[in-house]
Amino acid sequence: MVEKRTPIPVMEAIQKVMQFAKSGKKEIVALEEAYGRYLAEDLRADHDVPPFDRSPYDGFAIRAADSAAASLDHPVEFEVIETIGAGQVAEKEVAPFQAVRIMTGAQIPNGCDAVVMFEVANEYERNGKTYMSIKRPFRPGDNISFQGEDTKKGEMLVPKGTFINPGVQALLATFGYANVHVAKKPKVGIFATGSELLDVSEPLVPGKIRNSNAYMIQAQVYRIGALPVYFGKLMDDADRCFAAIENVLDEVDLLITTGGVSVGDYDYLPVIYERLGAEVLFNKVAMRPGSVTTVAQKEGKLLFGLSGNPSACYVGFELFVRPVIRTMLYSAKPYLYKTTATLLADFPKPNPFTRFVRSYVHAKEGRLYVTPVGMDKSNIVTSLAKANAFMVLPGGTRGFSKGDAVEIWLLENEEGSEQ
Amino acid sequence: MVEKRTPIPVMEAIQKVMQFAKSGKKEIVALEEAYGRYLAEDLRADHDVPPFDRSPYDGFAIRAADSAAASLDHPVEFEVIETIGAGQVAEKEVAPFQAVRIMTGAQIPNGCDAVVMFEVANEYERNGKTYMSIKRPFRPGDNISFQGEDTKKGEMLVPKGTFINPGVQALLATFGYANVHVAKKPKVGIFATGSELLDVSEPLVPGKIRNSNAYMIQAQVYRIGALPVYFGKLMDDADRCFAAIENVLDEVDLLITTGGVSVGDYDYLPVIYERLGAEVLFNKVAMRPGSVTTVAQKEGKLLFGLSGNPSACYVGFELFVRPVIRTMLYSAKPYLYKTTATLLADFPKPNPFTRFVRSYVHAKEGRLYVTPVGMDKSNIVTSLAKANAFMVLPGGTRGFSKGDAVEIWLLENEEGSEQ
Repeated sequence: MVEKRTPIPVMEAIQKVMQFAKSGKKEIVALEEAYGRYLAEDLRADHDVPPFDRSPYDGFAIRAADSAAASLDHPVEFEVIETIGAGQVAEKEVAPFQAVRIMTGAQIPNGCDAVVMFEVANEYERNGKTYMSIKRPFRPGDNISFQGEDTKKGEMLVPKGTFINPGVQALLATFGYANVHVAKKPKVGIFATGSELLDVSEPLVPGKIRNSNAYMIQAQVYRIGALPVYFGKLMDDADRCFAAIENVLDEVDLLITTGGVSVGDYDYLPVIYERLGAEVLFNKVAMRPGSVTTVAQKEGKLLFGLSGNPSACYVGFELFVRPVIRTMLYSAKPYLYKTTATLLADFPKPNPFTRFVRSYVHAKEGRLYVTPVGMDKSNIVTSLAKANAFMVLPGGTRGFSKGDAVEIWLLENEEGSEQ
Repeated sequence: MVEKRTPIPVMEAIQKVMQFAKSGKKEIVALEEAYGRYLAEDLRADHDVPPFDRSPYDGFAIRAADSAAASLDHPVEFEVIETIGAGQVAEKEVAPFQAVRIMTGAQIPNGCDAVVMFEVANEYERNGKTYMSIKRPFRPGDNISFQGEDTKKGEMLVPKGTFINPGVQALLATFGYANVHVAKKPKVGIFATGSELLDVSEPLVPGKIRNSNAYMIQAQVYRIGALPVYFGKLMDDADRCFAAIENVLDEVDLLITTGGVSVGDYDYLPVIYERLGAEVLFNKVAMRPGSVTTVAQKEGKLLFGLSGNPSACYVGFELFVRPVIRTMLYSAKPYLYKTTATLLADFPKPNPFTRFVRSYVHAKEGRLYVTPVGMDKSNIVTSLAKANAFMVLPGGTRGFSKGDAVEIWLLENEEGSEQ
């Protein structure tokens, strides 16, 4: 009576899903609102940086040649003919043994080719004129930031798909991006299924649990840079589920349901996919938790049937939904950041299937260490709060021991991986 | 003519600032809006998890004792008297050699003490009744998730000050936090100073540069969990600067200015602090970049005078402003996450003062590696976009070589450090 399903390897499942991943749409936002979004176009320099030869210090701009004879015993004197602050341009012509008092960031006056910092100059007045003297020679170019030495006009500075962090924001401002082309946030529809689910504000009653997956998934969607649209709970009734899902499919870029994908009597998603005319890409994955994860597509739109079990739901999102959304956000590295770490506890369970263990990774003296968090029962949620990584134990392996090197996938790293 | 300032060590400067750091205010938000905020109260379990003995699988609930004689040759038969889904409670009394068909998540019926998974049971009908048989014995407790085995009622699960990530969000939902006490976002006022600053939408003109610091700082404020309030640019005019700053001080929790803190002729912040009656905690720090960073306090409210130089401004924010804001957000680890990494390039410059080098850290085979990004001139911004860490080279050291272990402070790690 129970349907037999054939599990496929995790990597194969991810590939099947990623065949339907495509770039998303763009929109233009004001620079003030760009933080936290993803660049939809490469960021290029619209001018040289610095845009002109400028002083990196407060001091005096001079003609270096005039300082050639300066020494401790024989200071060379300069007449200070003008003062310019950042944003000002010198108005006078600088003759031999003349200097311009110059502030940090100001343009080097014509004819000058070195800057003497205040700290090494002796400034004084005589007969109503200002002078300064120095006790060592300067070479042409000393203490000058040259036009274009940081960046040349037209240079590609940051590729599209990059997360706009404070540094990228600074570059956007520097290069005049008052309006920024960013990836439009994909709309991710969410339904929770299960008659056992109570609203968060409802008191507990026998046999029921509160609906945590819907809130968790919404947060996961936000974290990945997309926009969740929660449509509420579906009752365990095939007709109503079908109608509700069909009704919203056009409104979203992809749809997530939690629960209803197992082989239980009230698991209606398989029937619904069939009635929708959606192609089921797989309905069983050789992984723990989340083996019942089911993904279907209808006219290229992906329908993710995640497990109703919180941990399996969480893992299913990060493995299958994340890379699809990040691809829509133009990322060339849509997958979780992968590396290895030293295991800090014995993990004796064998792994008939690839196992994703919620774990905490920390760094010490330049090395990464990983500790499984919680008991790793697939029905508990407390460990999710502490996890910042999955420890990935390949299927077909026996247990692992303290000190073993194991693969880890980081959950809160913005950079990602090409896989 | 130039004021002489005495630099103080970085750690001493941070301590001086942190004397004025205090917990912020609280507010209540709906659970849907809690993602990305910081818990203002400990998160506690309002009930046992699981809240009742439940089935972790789809299968049959039985009395284990009835299965004692089951073997491959002598299957034991059970009459299936009822079916319950998750959220339902069994209505019938289970007599010897009776079973209840039970779905994942459903409460274990009274009298039952084990669950037989579908996969190991043989189900059939006879004379209009449903039966199933098994070929091995089960022990009491087999395949049951016991009440409270994950979490006991009242247990503290997540301490206040924690960033609300998807896992914490799931816990909040599970434990009925329809409304969540979160830290109110501190309001951070921002002024940019400098007549050389153009608006982002203005074309470049000789001697001037676009205002990037204001946008960068706003993004840094967002990243750290606070609310930026940008008041615009101040011209290089002491009276207008003073009036503008005095005018907004009551509206914000702390105030940041960029530029105007050096010893240049147009650096008015020192005068303004004096006219405000603010106490200057320090005006020179033994660090590069950012040595001119100045911090003052008036009646306990902090005024951060960051350098106008983008890199120095960035560093000053992360070192001095970040821990103050994170303390307001109740974090016990308000500082940047610290560890060490292997240097991947020679860094021959000596370090008369503690140097914060914008760097890129990556992990490979369980080890961390760090590469300085860009040329590390203090007036360039491109390197900020690629940096995810500061490499921290102590003052008084000579250069460092490829392969050396160096201290790193991570910029995008939510966890932080106790210092």
